[in-house]
Amino acid sequence: MIPGRLIGVGLGPGDPELVTLKALNAMRVAPVIAYFAKAGRRGHARAIADPHLPEGRIEEALAYPVTTEIAFDDPAYVGALSAFYAESAARLAAHLRAGRDVALLCEGDPLFYGSFMHLYERLRGEFATQVIPGISAMSGAWSAAGLPMTWGDDQLSVLAATLPLAALTERLKRAEAAVVMKVGRNLAKVREALSAAGRLADAHYVEYATQERQMSCKLQDKQGDAAPYFSIVLAPGAGRRP
Amino acid sequence: MIPGRLIGVGLGPGDPELVTLKALNAMRVAPVIAYFAKAGRRGHARAIADPHLPEGRIEEALAYPVTTEIAFDDPAYVGALSAFYAESAARLAAHLRAGRDVALLCEGDPLFYGSFMHLYERLRGEFATQVIPGISAMSGAWSAAGLPMTWGDDQLSVLAATLPLAALTERLKRAEAAVVMKVGRNLAKVREALSAAGRLADAHYVEYATQERQMSCKLQDKQGDAAPYFSIVLAPGAGRRP
Repeated sequence: MIPGRLIGVGLGPGDPELVTLKALNAMRVAPVIAYFAKAGRRGHARAIADPHLPEGRIEEALAYPVTTEIAFDDPAYVGALSAFYAESAARLAAHLRAGRDVALLCEGDPLFYGSFMHLYERLRGEFATQVIPGISAMSGAWSAAGLPMTWGDDQLSVLAATLPLAALTERLKRAEAAVVMKVGRNLAKVREALSAAGRLADAHYVEYATQERQMSCKLQDKQGDAAPYFSIVLAPGAGRRP
Repeated sequence: MIPGRLIGVGLGPGDPELVTLKALNAMRVAPVIAYFAKAGRRGHARAIADPHLPEGRIEEALAYPVTTEIAFDDPAYVGALSAFYAESAARLAAHLRAGRDVALLCEGDPLFYGSFMHLYERLRGEFATQVIPGISAMSGAWSAAGLPMTWGDDQLSVLAATLPLAALTERLKRAEAAVVMKVGRNLAKVREALSAAGRLADAHYVEYATQERQMSCKLQDKQGDAAPYFSIVLAPGAGRRP
């Protein structure tokens, strides 16, 4: 019995047309399709794959026990997630040991802030693996906004909006081009940090990039501070351009 | 007469299978296919597209007058590039004015350090545009290396190896996860900066990611300091992982 392979399949930011040929082929061949989702939902990755998946696959929905109900630095959160990843890895390992390849669907790019990495680290010692890159959410965002991000030797900083205000401000001050991810409920703080760093005027706001409900505008034109989890703020670079 | 559209078509890091369905459709429909190339060569973007392009298109090869023969901060370089971009924009504008869509092929992701941006800025005032994101070279590199790059709230810094040693070292010291692009002839300096920043031991080297001649290894295991232009150094993050 040859064990199966674990394949991390990057599916891009949301538009099903932004799936690569390589991802498409992997999904069409693998007997087991796995994906992460919020309990009771289908999940973003599975939704992107939907138009492309043939019938009759074994599907393994890996439902998070918690998402934002507990703070991520609470030991209860760490414990719940750790047990969840161990149990998910065991479920996939059973297929792999039985010789079945498992395609683990990933929104965005698997090795860039992806939940995939937690199972990959737990399974790569025992099983063969493959990682198929996908277009990242930030790339979907700056393309949706039509915003050239980095010129010449511009440094790009990718920052989490969950950082404390002072740390976010300090990093934005030093950044040339900057992407702020995980904006969600942190938009007011992101505005304040950009303003303190002198970068508010050229910042753009993008939500649901490449999805049907996509919206982008100058951040200063964005009304209110309500923002979905899938929103990103971009401060473009201003480097060398002949 | 309805003018044509300028379409920036991201083709990813090199593997023709890492082209998206959206890019494929754009290439199959546009009557004019344009691409940048070094004089006398076909160019990386055109090579990636090759298995996908139908016969009988108008092709516009935009051949750089200089690449690395003159330093990029030399006024002669800036002048030559500026004239080249103006002339290239005029060539594409003639097609657009005649009602022909132009697909400008881009290796990697068009709005992330892409030459596309120079023509986009010159033409977007007059013509409709569309940007199709592609998988970036750095994403191809960390996927090729099988290296999870960013965990939890890790900050990612994307740096150019062309920076002076002191600046590169300083930025690497502050970085959580770091990507060093444009390594080429700067590999010895990149090693020195990583060493001074205490990040040499966990750094990876990747050349020609996702292409047939792809190679990746720990940077400390890479023999010698010769490296192609298409090489990248990665220092992964070590953030939260339950």
